[in-house]
Amino acid sequence: MFEAAELGRKVPKEEYEKAVPELRAELLEAQFRLRNTKTPVIIVIGGVEGAGKGETVNRLSEWLDPRGLETHAFGPPSEEERDRPPYWRFWRTLPARGRIGIFFGSWYTDPIVKRVFGKLTASELDQELARIAFFEQMLVDDGALILKFWFHLAKDAQRKRLSKLEKDKATSWRVTPRDWKFFKMYDKFARVSERAIRRTDAGDAPWILVEAGDSRYRELLVGRALLEALRQRIENGQGKPAASPAARPVTMPPAAAEAAVSILDRVDLSQALSDDEYDKRLAKAQERLGRLSREAHDEKVSSVVVFEGWDAAGKGGNIRRVTAAMDARHYQVIPIAAPTDEERAHHYLWRFWRHIPRAGLVTIFDRSWYGRVLVERVEGFAREDEWRRAFLEINDFEQQLVDHGVVVTKFWIHIGGEEQLARFKEREGTAYKRHKITDEDWRNREKWDPYVAAINDMVARTSSTQAPWVIVAGNDKRFARVQVVETLVKRLQKAL
Amino acid sequence: MFEAAELGRKVPKEEYEKAVPELRAELLEAQFRLRNTKTPVIIVIGGVEGAGKGETVNRLSEWLDPRGLETHAFGPPSEEERDRPPYWRFWRTLPARGRIGIFFGSWYTDPIVKRVFGKLTASELDQELARIAFFEQMLVDDGALILKFWFHLAKDAQRKRLSKLEKDKATSWRVTPRDWKFFKMYDKFARVSERAIRRTDAGDAPWILVEAGDSRYRELLVGRALLEALRQRIENGQGKPAASPAARPVTMPPAAAEAAVSILDRVDLSQALSDDEYDKRLAKAQERLGRLSREAHDEKVSSVVVFEGWDAAGKGGNIRRVTAAMDARHYQVIPIAAPTDEERAHHYLWRFWRHIPRAGLVTIFDRSWYGRVLVERVEGFAREDEWRRAFLEINDFEQQLVDHGVVVTKFWIHIGGEEQLARFKEREGTAYKRHKITDEDWRNREKWDPYVAAINDMVARTSSTQAPWVIVAGNDKRFARVQVVETLVKRLQKAL
Repeated sequence: MFEAAELGRKVPKEEYEKAVPELRAELLEAQFRLRNTKTPVIIVIGGVEGAGKGETVNRLSEWLDPRGLETHAFGPPSEEERDRPPYWRFWRTLPARGRIGIFFGSWYTDPIVKRVFGKLTASELDQELARIAFFEQMLVDDGALILKFWFHLAKDAQRKRLSKLEKDKATSWRVTPRDWKFFKMYDKFARVSERAIRRTDAGDAPWILVEAGDSRYRELLVGRALLEALRQRIENGQGKPAASPAARPVTMPPAAAEAAVSILDRVDLSQALSDDEYDKRLAKAQERLGRLSREAHDEKVSSVVVFEGWDAAGKGGNIRRVTAAMDARHYQVIPIAAPTDEERAHHYLWRFWRHIPRAGLVTIFDRSWYGRVLVERVEGFAREDEWRRAFLEINDFEQQLVDHGVVVTKFWIHIGGEEQLARFKEREGTAYKRHKITDEDWRNREKWDPYVAAINDMVARTSSTQAPWVIVAGNDKRFARVQVVETLVKRLQKAL
Repeated sequence: MFEAAELGRKVPKEEYEKAVPELRAELLEAQFRLRNTKTPVIIVIGGVEGAGKGETVNRLSEWLDPRGLETHAFGPPSEEERDRPPYWRFWRTLPARGRIGIFFGSWYTDPIVKRVFGKLTASELDQELARIAFFEQMLVDDGALILKFWFHLAKDAQRKRLSKLEKDKATSWRVTPRDWKFFKMYDKFARVSERAIRRTDAGDAPWILVEAGDSRYRELLVGRALLEALRQRIENGQGKPAASPAARPVTMPPAAAEAAVSILDRVDLSQALSDDEYDKRLAKAQERLGRLSREAHDEKVSSVVVFEGWDAAGKGGNIRRVTAAMDARHYQVIPIAAPTDEERAHHYLWRFWRHIPRAGLVTIFDRSWYGRVLVERVEGFAREDEWRRAFLEINDFEQQLVDHGVVVTKFWIHIGGEEQLARFKEREGTAYKRHKITDEDWRNREKWDPYVAAINDMVARTSSTQAPWVIVAGNDKRFARVQVVETLVKRLQKAL
C-alpha cells in the first residue's frame, strides 16, 4: 500500500505559488456554501511522525475561515476523559452541521499504538477497527462528510527528517524521545497501520494516502482533496443525509502536473535479460517453483495467483512459464471473461469464490475480481459507489484467504505505451496473431490515463504485505517472465 | 430481548386454517413477481433446538414454488469445505437473483457454538460478528433481501419439548445427545445468542424474533413476514440495488388477531401496595439505594438510568423517589425535551453522550435516546431507515457504556389506557396540575396501538442482560415506585 506514496512526488515552488491564491479563494467559497448543506465535515489526519501533519493542519487553518473551523488534537486522555468510555472525547468534539472539524490524532491513534506495543491482540485490534467502521458509518448515515488523510514517509525519509529537525535549534524541541521510540518500531507501525487503513477504507469514508516528503505537494494534495469533496457535497446534497450513494464518495484530486507521478512511472521498463541469462535464470526458478509447489501440495498450502496487466502485456506467456513448472494436477488456470448468465445473477465476487483452490492446490486467475476497480470503473460498467465500495470488499475477501493460510500474490504486468503500440501492430501484421487484437484493445488504449489512475488507486488501496501487488517490468518479455517465476518462488519459500 | 418472545402467543386452529389458503396464494404470487426484481432473497433460520425450525422450513417449502426455492442445511463442514476459508460454503450456496434461499443453520451457528464452548474469546466472537455484519451489508448493497428469524423457546418450554419429542416413538430419533448437551448450556447460549443478535440487527438485515411455542403462530408469523418483505421489495425496487433506503427495511407483519400480544399485555397492572407496606418497603429500599450509591461513588462505578413511559405514567414521581435516596452531589437528572439548536446540529446521539456521568456518578434521563424509536418513529419525525438503523446504533452506544463499567438500567413505566384517561381528567380538573396536560398528550393517546408496537419492538431489540428494560406496573403509583427503587438496588448490588 505505502509503495504508492514513495514515488518522490514534488511540486515546484513557482507552481505552488501560482496555485495557492486560487485554491484559497475556492476553499473559502466552498466553506461558505457548505453551511447551507448542513453537512458536518470531519477531517482525520493520521500518519507517521515528522511527516508534516502539523504544518499541513496549520496551512489549512490559514486557508480556511477560522469561524467555521475547529481543530482537535488528542494527547493522553485527561482525567475527565478517562472517567468515561473512550469515544466520549471524540463525541464531544464532533463538529456541528456546516462546520469543519480537523482531528489531528483520532480514534485510530490509540488502537494502532496499543497494537504496536502489544497491548492489544490481533483480534482485539480488529474489534476496535470494526467499532471505528461502525462509528464512521453512523456519522456518514447522518450526513457527515468524512475525509481521512494518511501522511506517509519511507523509513529512511523519516529518519532523515527527524535528524534534521533535531539538529536545527529552532525545531529541535519538536523531536521527542517518543518520536525516536516510535521510529524504532517503524516496520511494526507500518504493518499495523496498513491493516487499520485496509479495514476502514470505506467507499464513503475513504483514506487518502499522502506522500509527505514534499511540503508543497502534500499541502496542495490535501487542499485540493478537501475542495473537491466540499464541491461534490455542495452540488449533490442539501441538508438531509445523502440517500443517494452517488452523492457520497470523494474523488481523488488532480495533483499538480509535475506531481502527477503514478506507481507505474517508477517501474524501470528498460530492464532486460539476454537470451543466455534468461534461459539460465528461468530454468533455475522453474525448477525451484516446481519443487516448492509439490512441497506446498504435500503440506496443503494453497496459492491464489492473480494476473492483471495492459492488453498485449504478455499475461498469457507469463502464465505459461508458471504452469510449465508445476504438476498439471496441482493447478488450475481460470480465464475471466464477461460473466456468464449464472455469474451475473450473483454478487460479483461469487464467481471468484467458486474457484478458490482446495488445500494444497493453486488457482491462477487470468484477470480477476480487480476488473471491478479497473475496467468496470473506467468504462462506467459499475456505478461509482459500487467500485468505491469494492476496495473494502476485495480486502475482506483476500483477508479471508490469507487467514485460511492461502498464499495470495497479484501481478500487474506493465508495459509502456509505445511498446504496446508496437505489439498491436505486430499482431495485426502476423496472420496467426491477428485474432489477439480487437477494436476493443484500440479503444482501451485511448483510455490509458484513466487506467493509470485506476491502477495507482488499486495498488494504494489493496496492496499489503500479506497479499502484495507486484508490478512487473514487461517491456522485455524475458525479464518479466523471470521476475514472475522468481517472485512466486520467494512467496512460497516465505510461506513454507 | 427474549422476554418479548415468551408471551404465550397462539393462533387458534380455525383462524390458522382460514388464513393459510390466502397466505399461500399471496406468497406464490409474490414469489412469481419477485423474479422481475432480480432480488436474491436470503432467509436465515436460527434459534434453539426443538423450536420447530425444521417444521417451519418444511411448511415454507410447501407454500412456495419449489422451482424458485433452495434450502441449505449446514452440518459439520465437509472435507471439501474444510479445505477452503469458512465462508466458502456459504458463498457457493447463495441464491441467484430472483430466487429464494433458506439457510437452515448459517454463518451464525459456528461463532455462537464456539463461543458457548469457550473456543472463541469474547473479542474473537465480536470479530466474527463484525465479519457477519460486513458480509450481510455487502449482499444488501448488491440488492439482496435478507430476513433473519430467531426461534425462541423459554428454558422450561425447551425441556418439555425435547422430552415430549423423545417419548414419542415417531419423533424420538430427532432428539440427539447433542441436543441435551446444548440444553445444559441453555443460559450460556441465550447470553451469546443475544449478543450475536444485538450486534447484527441492522436496519436492512433485521432479526425477527419468533416466539416458537405454538406451531400455527410461528408459521403464520414467518409466512407473513416473508410476504410483507417480498411485497415491499416488489413495490419499491426493480433490478438494481435499492439505493433509496426506504426501499430496504422489512416491516414486522401483523400477527393473527389472537396472537397480537405485546410485552405490555403481560404486565399485571393490578399489582398494588397498601400504604403501610409501601412506606416500609420504600424506606428500606431507599436506605439501601443510598448506601449502595455512596459505595458506587467511592468505587467509581457509574450508573445511567433511563425513564420512559406513557404520558401521565408518573415518571417524575418515580425519579423523585430515586433521587431522594441519593446524595445530591452524586446524580444529575437530565430532562429530554425538544433538542436545542446546537443539539439539532449534531448526530442525535450527541446530546446524550454529553451527559455521560463521570466515574462514580449517576445520570438519570427523563426520556432518552429511545425517543428515536418511539415518538420519532410513531410520529414520522425520523425516516423509516433512520429509526430502523437506530436499534444497532443504540445497542452499540450502550455497549460502550457497559464495556466501560457503567451500570445501565432502563425503565418503561406502564399504565393501562383507562388509568391514563382517569389521570388526564384528574389533571384537567386540578388547578395546579393543569399545566401537566396538553393537547399533545391527547393526540398521543390516539396513537396508543402504534406506540405499543414500537415499545414491543424496542424491548425485543434493545433489552439485554447487561442493559435490561424493566417494565414497571404503574397503575398503582406506590407499587411502581417500590419496583423502581428495588430494581436499582438489585442492579447496583450485582455490579458492586
